[in-house]
Amino acid sequence: MTQSRDAFEARLRQIGAERYHDLHPFHDLLHGGGCTPDQVRAWVINRYYYQHSIPMKDAAFMSRVEDHDGTDTNEGGIRRWLRLAEAVGLDPEYVASCEGVLPATKFAVDAYVRFVRDKTLLEAVAASLTELFAPKIHANRIEGLLKNYDFADDSSLSYFRNRLKEAPKDVAFGLGWVLDHADTQEKQDMAAKALIFKTDVLWSQLDALHSAYVDPARIPPGAWQPGEGLALKRAS
Amino acid sequence: MTQSRDAFEARLRQIGAERYHDLHPFHDLLHGGGCTPDQVRAWVINRYYYQHSIPMKDAAFMSRVEDHDGTDTNEGGIRRWLRLAEAVGLDPEYVASCEGVLPATKFAVDAYVRFVRDKTLLEAVAASLTELFAPKIHANRIEGLLKNYDFADDSSLSYFRNRLKEAPKDVAFGLGWVLDHADTQEKQDMAAKALIFKTDVLWSQLDALHSAYVDPARIPPGAWQPGEGLALKRAS
Repeated sequence: MTQSRDAFEARLRQIGAERYHDLHPFHDLLHGGGCTPDQVRAWVINRYYYQHSIPMKDAAFMSRVEDHDGTDTNEGGIRRWLRLAEAVGLDPEYVASCEGVLPATKFAVDAYVRFVRDKTLLEAVAASLTELFAPKIHANRIEGLLKNYDFADDSSLSYFRNRLKEAPKDVAFGLGWVLDHADTQEKQDMAAKALIFKTDVLWSQLDALHSAYVDPARIPPGAWQPGEGLALKRAS
Repeated sequence: MTQSRDAFEARLRQIGAERYHDLHPFHDLLHGGGCTPDQVRAWVINRYYYQHSIPMKDAAFMSRVEDHDGTDTNEGGIRRWLRLAEAVGLDPEYVASCEGVLPATKFAVDAYVRFVRDKTLLEAVAASLTELFAPKIHANRIEGLLKNYDFADDSSLSYFRNRLKEAPKDVAFGLGWVLDHADTQEKQDMAAKALIFKTDVLWSQLDALHSAYVDPARIPPGAWQPGEGLALKRAS
């Protein structure tokens, strides 16, 4: 049975409450100051792959609906992420090369880009609704990083400050659009499934990171090894 | 510079020596009898997703080259895998539903199917050469499972016995084809990269399994939970 607009919105929000990656233990470690410098670097390197794929995802999206993010913002987001990379001692060129990114990260992110390209518009928009759950994690992250790590300051964290400002605008549009267009049970189920898919994409990235770099670390063959890709000046 | 046929074959074999998933600690655990019944079940459930995708991969492949595996074999392989599922106490219908498969497993296997569909024929054949490295792991597995687990017998392990018989034939064709057709440095590099990609696909699946179900287990939201999907008669 088709759910009411409110009941359907509550169902979407429940997916975040149960499956969003703020529940992953890696974030506690990161935000709480429990990460070693190399664990922070591994996170920066791998999350970059996600970041650099967003313009591709948006290009796929733009051909389908008015872009609600904008190319400038995308490029700005990559630039801000590379500022973070420098702040944690990494060579931004190494990070931008995407060498050393975990294969599992690539498989998950590539699956997301293809999902947005190949699925219905409703599913593509619904997948973006993880932004509904993002402000809390971004706020926690800024607070935790500032408190616990020397590298954290307004410049290195500008990526998150920016998302904190933009995500609510972006997602208000997306949520309204999904609530308007998911007007049958079948479409509501499709939208909910798409949002679950996206939480899986995010969760898998942290799982890969956790199992590669957190005790007991098992770095897969070919992935970034601590000591690689450091900026010459700031190597520590 | 283009490598000689022998040097290029040695290069391909070296990729297996360094990156094939027989090096993953999960296999030691499994073959050595260190897995709990639930860890064996998690392996059977997740590996099924790979198994059931092989016909799709082969269908993509068949439209490009004479199939060297055959649909009968594929269907036989799935049937033999479900026999193993029953032997470890799982409901074969649950396993065949692919519910509860780890998202990271899906992302990796789906990436492989698409790789075979979208890349050059040379890359598609080169990716199949992980079979070069398979006989040793299949022999170790049969020996280890027979020795260490009650469920293991000729019927439940028929999948591996069959692969042990077929893989060498299949891969002899594939290896010869790749050695013949990779006649420039560029093509040799492409083939080596494709084989590395495939080792990443296999390794990622074990990493996901290990981090979800081996101590400290972190099962992702929505993935199989021990106790689910058991066969009524044989639930233990």
